[in-house]
Amino acid sequence: PDTSGMPAPSEKTAWDFMPEGWIKKDGFETDYHRAEAWQAPEGFQPITQLESARMGITTPQMERVAEREPHLTPEQVRDEVAAGRMVIPANTVHLSHQLDPMCIGRASLTKVNANMGASPVSSGTDEEVEKLHWSIKWGADTVMDLSTGGDLDECRQAIIKNSTVPIGTVPIYSMIIGRKLSDLTHEIILESIEHQAKQGVDYFTIHAGVLRAHLDYVKKRLIGIVSRGGSLLAKWMIDHGEENPMYVLWEQICQVMRQYDVTFSIGDGLRPGGLADATDQAQLAELCTLGELTERAWRQGVQVMVEGPGHVPFDQVEYNMKLQRTICHGAPFYVLGPLITDIFPGYDHITSCIGATSAAYHGASMLCYVTPKEHLGLPKKDDVKQGCIAYKIAAHAADIALGIPGTRDRDDELTKARAALNWEKHFELSFDPDTARAYHDEDLDVDT
Amino acid sequence: PDTSGMPAPSEKTAWDFMPEGWIKKDGFETDYHRAEAWQAPEGFQPITQLESARMGITTPQMERVAEREPHLTPEQVRDEVAAGRMVIPANTVHLSHQLDPMCIGRASLTKVNANMGASPVSSGTDEEVEKLHWSIKWGADTVMDLSTGGDLDECRQAIIKNSTVPIGTVPIYSMIIGRKLSDLTHEIILESIEHQAKQGVDYFTIHAGVLRAHLDYVKKRLIGIVSRGGSLLAKWMIDHGEENPMYVLWEQICQVMRQYDVTFSIGDGLRPGGLADATDQAQLAELCTLGELTERAWRQGVQVMVEGPGHVPFDQVEYNMKLQRTICHGAPFYVLGPLITDIFPGYDHITSCIGATSAAYHGASMLCYVTPKEHLGLPKKDDVKQGCIAYKIAAHAADIALGIPGTRDRDDELTKARAALNWEKHFELSFDPDTARAYHDEDLDVDT
Repeated sequence: PDTSGMPAPSEKTAWDFMPEGWIKKDGFETDYHRAEAWQAPEGFQPITQLESARMGITTPQMERVAEREPHLTPEQVRDEVAAGRMVIPANTVHLSHQLDPMCIGRASLTKVNANMGASPVSSGTDEEVEKLHWSIKWGADTVMDLSTGGDLDECRQAIIKNSTVPIGTVPIYSMIIGRKLSDLTHEIILESIEHQAKQGVDYFTIHAGVLRAHLDYVKKRLIGIVSRGGSLLAKWMIDHGEENPMYVLWEQICQVMRQYDVTFSIGDGLRPGGLADATDQAQLAELCTLGELTERAWRQGVQVMVEGPGHVPFDQVEYNMKLQRTICHGAPFYVLGPLITDIFPGYDHITSCIGATSAAYHGASMLCYVTPKEHLGLPKKDDVKQGCIAYKIAAHAADIALGIPGTRDRDDELTKARAALNWEKHFELSFDPDTARAYHDEDLDVDT
Repeated sequence: PDTSGMPAPSEKTAWDFMPEGWIKKDGFETDYHRAEAWQAPEGFQPITQLESARMGITTPQMERVAEREPHLTPEQVRDEVAAGRMVIPANTVHLSHQLDPMCIGRASLTKVNANMGASPVSSGTDEEVEKLHWSIKWGADTVMDLSTGGDLDECRQAIIKNSTVPIGTVPIYSMIIGRKLSDLTHEIILESIEHQAKQGVDYFTIHAGVLRAHLDYVKKRLIGIVSRGGSLLAKWMIDHGEENPMYVLWEQICQVMRQYDVTFSIGDGLRPGGLADATDQAQLAELCTLGELTERAWRQGVQVMVEGPGHVPFDQVEYNMKLQRTICHGAPFYVLGPLITDIFPGYDHITSCIGATSAAYHGASMLCYVTPKEHLGLPKKDDVKQGCIAYKIAAHAADIALGIPGTRDRDDELTKARAALNWEKHFELSFDPDTARAYHDEDLDVDT
């Protein structure tokens, strides 16, 4: 439901951005939003879920997704993937381990991502694998390994092997380990991406949307560029006097990712870092580039989601969601929060899960959690739990508000248990039964 | 900003519900929304803020309110009060102690209420006074004393004497101490209300909207009546076979409250206790009665705010706010949350502050906090803090979203401090500097 004045949905879908060599059959000139309308190039072998969907093939991963979300049929999943409105981040290598396929897209349940990762001075591989299991226990649907220190390669490998959920990374983080940023070349970028794709990473955040032309807009901001990937690439462009290499190499990156069906999470390197910078020229200019990159990735057969802000006043959240839907033609929007106020450090899991609820209700498909340590330090185990729970609240509340069938059943069962004063059932139906029980037991002596 | 399809604002205000004896002057037949249009009865002495406003008098309390909220002039405050869109809960007795006048209404900042109170088995007067100071420290704009045990009278007296913020109570709680509910008579009700008014209570929650005719609707619910006041009155009506005494005595109650300028917080005894019961026939039927009671209270010169739900799915929050605005002619809406999912006991300060943000953005004027102990036990000191902070987030974020002048300044200052990596200033500008500092210091050894 759109508030009046919001940008209308795009009239295009991924069917409007078919790869070269695909031929629209006669008689399907206007009715081309389905597999029957298209003739793939001779001998074409689909690798990505998007390619299979375009050929009308329902993959085992689509079947599994529909099993996990019974309000969808495998065919609906396939059609959503074909339209570009849904992704199934499932690297073919990770599928050979323990990955349990899931989907991200507005027709499905709202998903939650948890970030983790070792830094140069903390944590190691075992600890990261433990954090992975912990995140999954508390409801993370995907996990991003944002390690910037330790043995990145070994850690990534261990996480992929142990994970039942899709793993995302920001490949540029590892590209600058052991070398100066200014030494980063096109070759190293492509090699690193291929290396991580081969390891089985399911989705890559690539900040290809920050262009040289946008950097002027950033000067007007209170807090410039807060995305690490965005900052690195901005610095690289200034040092080299050249365009963003991720943008320049886009088709080559697509070809590498296609080989393993790695999904894009096109990064928003210019996401606002404070309310004052929200929905500004820099952010909007980049969003237009993200739309262009979406189209180009679809033409290469690669699955796409798009990343979003960040810090956004509550009244601008809907507009941000609707604008992305227009410009990126319905590609799933994966947003970080957004925080709706800046003055509550220590409580940003709350400030941001409010924005996230509204974002999901208005169109975001996946919410990247924020922990209480955001802006202050590195999240520990309990911070991860608090972040996950705040975001499960946001995702679940949005799904109920959107009327996804069956989503309110557990709420109603809990309400009935409450009405019956059935405490045991009340606890069992709670998202975190141990905490609910403990809070109740604190007062056991004084229970009236 | 209304989503299309929402109920339009009422065409009436408190100017349409003037007391008997007030005469509309000639020439003001259609232009009667100001003091100049009216002739008060001869010798009329205003007691309530509403009466003063109707006479065009700017009281010292209105001056103080405008001082505390510089985006309003004293005259604007007066006009909002006269229209019924704003209240200044300031019992004349409490004003003789330390009350610092504040206002509640959509033209002003969003306010937060914290509930506290001793139960039969816990806490005493000293502890309650300590909780009062603690709530105010963490940003409570008003406090409700919901005591149901201990020496209620002494405790209430101590709280009023010590409080700089308005104090609200639910008088029926004390009416049934030492007697059976069925022994409650009209006389006892009026005596108790007069007693508490004389003590200096600033606003009363009176559940006069639950009528006998509504009780049938409650049978269809998953969780019946969850409001304590509502349940007590429903039981009384069933026992006595008579109409709700609060409803029957309304004008007499008004007359008592007028003498001390106690403000109404008309209770929603049929507020939903679970998502499944939200916006149902029982709730809406009661809301219509709340509209009628608002009109009747205005006719007696008494200030009015109206209480609202409770548990409401995220997509129904705006409708609930806009409907109250229509039916209660813009009287300030004071809402409890609402919770937007039921399955997170232990985290209901979060589930509800999301609903509260949306409620405030769409029209609620005051938010009653919910603590992590909601549904589970009695809040302790840290629970009170967590509840207050979650609600300050909601109120502040809504005020920014509504564009109230100056509300984003501190956010922008903090963003600048963040950009400058000025940690000390970052902490200082935080709502809870100690927590922010402690979280940051946890990682001091590993700060990079």
